Formats: sequence, structure tokens, C-alpha cells
Amino acid sequence: MFKLTFLGTSSGVPTKNRNVTALALQTSLNRDWWLVDCGEATQHRLQHIALTVHDLAGICITHIHGDHSYGLPGLLASAAMTGRKRPLILIAPLAVKAWLDATILHTELFLPFPLIHVDVASEQLVHQESGLSIERHHLSHRAPSVGFRFAVETSKWKLDSAALRARGVPSGPLWGKLQAGQDVVLDDGSVLAAADFRVADVQRAVAVIGGDNDNPALLAEACAGAQVLVHESTYTEAILQKVGPGPTHSSVQRVAQFAAEIGLPNLILTHFSARYDNPQGMAELEAEARLHYAGTLFLAEDFASYELDAGGVLRKLSAQ
Amino acid sequence: MFKLTFLGTSSGVPTKNRNVTALALQTSLNRDWWLVDCGEATQHRLQHIALTVHDLAGICITHIHGDHSYGLPGLLASAAMTGRKRPLILIAPLAVKAWLDATILHTELFLPFPLIHVDVASEQLVHQESGLSIERHHLSHRAPSVGFRFAVETSKWKLDSAALRARGVPSGPLWGKLQAGQDVVLDDGSVLAAADFRVADVQRAVAVIGGDNDNPALLAEACAGAQVLVHESTYTEAILQKVGPGPTHSSVQRVAQFAAEIGLPNLILTHFSARYDNPQGMAELEAEARLHYAGTLFLAEDFASYELDAGGVLRKLSAQ
Repeated sequence: MFKLTFLGTSSGVPTKNRNVTALALQTSLNRDWWLVDCGEATQHRLQHIALTVHDLAGICITHIHGDHSYGLPGLLASAAMTGRKRPLILIAPLAVKAWLDATILHTELFLPFPLIHVDVASEQLVHQESGLSIERHHLSHRAPSVGFRFAVETSKWKLDSAALRARGVPSGPLWGKLQAGQDVVLDDGSVLAAADFRVADVQRAVAVIGGDNDNPALLAEACAGAQVLVHESTYTEAILQKVGPGPTHSSVQRVAQFAAEIGLPNLILTHFSARYDNPQGMAELEAEARLHYAGTLFLAEDFASYELDAGGVLRKLSAQ
Repeated sequence: MFKLTFLGTSSGVPTKNRNVTALALQTSLNRDWWLVDCGEATQHRLQHIALTVHDLAGICITHIHGDHSYGLPGLLASAAMTGRKRPLILIAPLAVKAWLDATILHTELFLPFPLIHVDVASEQLVHQESGLSIERHHLSHRAPSVGFRFAVETSKWKLDSAALRARGVPSGPLWGKLQAGQDVVLDDGSVLAAADFRVADVQRAVAVIGGDNDNPALLAEACAGAQVLVHESTYTEAILQKVGPGPTHSSVQRVAQFAAEIGLPNLILTHFSARYDNPQGMAELEAEARLHYAGTLFLAEDFASYELDAGGVLRKLSAQ
């Protein structure tokens, strides 16, 4: 239903292993993908995975800080230079649009495709198309920040095979016609209406991608019915206490406790302070999460993909 | 005298092997270094070499285009986040400063160090300090573009050892005192004036770093007395003819002919179109250069360093 590929998992500054924040989100609907946040060198990350900027449907920016947005001008410039014509949706705070407008003005950046800005301060439902809706939910950070709730719905026709067998129709070409919505005439002249032998098989999934935020409970509404939450956990609780509330970030403990409280089945932590970018540091973060949360847990890695299936199971795919 | 380390050698868009333009310039004067152009992800490149942003004295930007400037906000933000307090010189077109001001305003970027802007449109001598001067020279490109002439001068006292031996002074501690500028008294009571037995040994070198430019001859004045020129050569002449004059770039032929005409001893070509980022492509560029230029020639590679010694010889150091 969803495939999430992390292009950057470091907070504030890049490290050798982890870039600043960006996440590619694909759905089972089509080839389109969405980018959530666009730290510097996101376009460089894309050169190492199978996604192209031409299939990029839109970019969602959680907040204006540079480690979530400084990759935008270069990504747009490269899309322009490599011939993109397709309109691009930009769901972002007004400050991001204002900065891009200034960038276009001062740096002689010409975009040969429409950039359609949707202000996250306007409506909660920031995007809707067949099978996909995107909502924004306000968070608590020193700059205005939002999380995005991606809800996907796929529908296909499923034959009522038991009813067909009971009616004495053997599996074969007739089944295919019924599934495609065509009524069929049997050898005995009787007619089977497709509507009587097929039902819509609807699958739904919800993934919530948080921005920088020191209060995970603000995502309670967004997480209703969600299978997976991606949330920053910049520090351990002990270091967060030491650093103080100034940076307005979350600790692992805070996020893990929230996920446990709402019974969330899958949690992916990301946006780690550079101090944890070593095996001991990551083990420390994971141990703190495990103290509070018993669901499926991942600490995101750059270039790793995580796939959520229709059964609500989240699996890590191999890093590319 | 100079060490040039290429952090990006691709024109317009990054490739897997080559980032967009940036060049680190070190001199034999001190630990300071200078950055010429700052394409996106320059800060990421710096994580893989021995230079730190804390020893960065200044940044020279040749022109506003994104592939030469989009790394600035992230580099400055990371310098701020990792505690830089030292003032930073920014020698750049006014448009770069205007864009950075807009970036600081819209993206809540706080710089805890002074950023001292020197407008390249003002005077030719854009920077001068003990042993180092930097001039800008106007070029021809679709956006206003300049090249930078770095002139370095080191001076140390050299003893006139022949004269000392003729005077009957054996080598030893007295020589050290004379070299340090102290007059000395011999056992026989006679006085040797340091000024009579030492001469200043002055070494000079000039490196010219061009910006985007379709007319290398504009650097004739800058190259007077220069040992090395770094210049863009985006295409072969055949492709440049095919592409037309719109991009206002140089071909390899154009640059090589200019270097030959002025008798320049060392030439480094860079800023290659992504189409040449393969062994055949680079061989094609090199062959065209060799047709016209017989001096020391290098086609720049990312992470490669080139060292110019006091004798005017340019050597490639191993890629890091």
C-alpha cells in the first residue's frame, strides 16, 4: 500500500552516513511518488535509487528550517534542466513559497513547469485525488511545523467464487468476464449478472509523517486508523532534558510512549542528532524505544525502504 | 604555494561521480583556505576531506547560478550549528548577497558570525591581506560572472652563506642569529650586521580561477604572470557549435587555444557537461585540449588536489 524510502535521517546537519531530512513515499495506486521534506542534497540521494524527478507528483514540506528545505532549489533546477514539463504540487508553509519566489528572482532560476503551491495554513485537506488524500496536522516546534496524513484506498473487484460454484459455473473465461463487469450468458441460456457475483474489495492504509515536533500527542487525530507513524526522535530523554526545551524536539521516549498509548502497530523513528551516528548511539536509542513500545519498530536508515502491505504489516526492504 | 582541491566539476546538474561546482584553495601562508563557488552539497563534500569550515577564510562566488551557489545556505547553517564565531568573507555578486538575505529572512537562518560581503562589482582588488591578494576580472556569461586572480607571496630570510664563509664565520648558532635579524659580535670583537649577510627570498605564485565564461581572452590580464588557470570547458567545440551560443559557455578548444596563445604553463579544465561523465567522454575532451595546448594539462576530478610548487610546477596529488 505504501513504500517509504528514507533519503535523509539526520537532524540539523548531515553526517557521512545520514543526510538531512527527506522521505520518498510511494503508493500502490500508480507510479507517482511524493517527497516529504527536501534537505540539501536530496537530488543527489535520488541519483542512487530508482525514483526519478519526472514521476514526482508533489513535495510536502513540514516546516521552513534549512535541514528540511534547502534541497528544494537544486531539485527544481535539475528537474527543469532535465526537461520536466509536468506541473508539480508544493504543499508547504507560506515561508517556503516566499523563499522559493526570492530564489527564483535572485538566482535566475527558470522553471518550465507550473509549481502549484498549497499553503498548509489554509485547509486541513491539502490534497485529494482518486485513491489518495493528504491532510496536514499542526505540530509544536519553534517554527510552524506540520505532519502529513497520507490515506490511500485501492479497490478491485473480487469474484464471489463460492456463489459461482454453487451456481455450477466452473472457473474459466466466464469468471474473467464477470470480474470485468460483463454479464454472461450460460449454455442453458440463463444470464448471470456480474453485479450478483462480484464485490468490491477495498483496501485502505494510512501513513502519518511527522515534522519536527516536541509534542507527539498532537498527532493523535492524524493517527486514528493509521498503520504507521514516522516521527522525529532527535534525542534520548536524558539528553533532551539536558539540552532543554529550546530546540523543541521529541525524545525517543516521548514518541514511543505516545505510539504505545494509542496502540499504533508500526513506528519508524528518524531525525537523529548527529551524536548518535554510531552503533552504540543507535543501540541506545533503540533500547529506549523498546522500553516503552512493543509494536513493530524501526530506526530509519538512509536509503532503506519500508513497505506496508494491505494486511497492515510493515517490513524493511534491503537498503539499496 | 597553492593547493587546489576540486569539490565539484560538473556543469549544471550533479552526476554520480561529479558534483556541481566548488573548489577549495589553500596557500602556503597559513591554515586558512578559500572556497571558490559553492554548489549544492559542497558541505557534504567537505566531510570527506581534511578541510574544516572553521578554517575557511572566505567564499568567492563567480556568479549567481544555482550550480555555483545553492550550497551556500546549508554550508553557512552548518557552520553556525557547529559553533563558528569567526567572521566569514563573502566575495560575490550583489545578487548572491540579496538571495542570502532573503534566505536568512524566510528560513529563520541565524548566523552567529559576521558575514562580510564584498561586491565584485565594486573594485578590482576584492581582498588583500599579508601575502595574499584577490582580484576579480569580469567575464562573459548570460549572468554577470567573474574570475578570481589569487596572488600569493611568501618571504623568508636566506643567509648569504658564501659571504659568511668568506668572512670566516663557521656555520653554527651565529648563522641562526643572523638569519633571525640579530647583529652578532665575533670573538675578535668585530660586529657582523645581519642586514649585510641575509637577503629576502621572495616566492610568488598566481592562480586564476574562472567562472562561467564564453570568452577566455577576457582573462588575459588576470593571467599575466600566472602559473595556473582553472577554467570551465563545458563542451567540445563541435557540441558547443551544435548547442549554439545560448548557454554562453566555453569549449575545450577555446580554452586550450587561449592558454597556448598566452604561454600559460599549467591548465586545469573543469565544469564538464554531464554528457562527458564517462571514460570515452573525458578522453574526447582531453584529446581536443591536447590538439591545441602543449603545457601541463589536467581535467579536474572531484576530490583530486593539484599542488603548485614555488618552481611553478603543478602536480596532481592522489584523490582522497
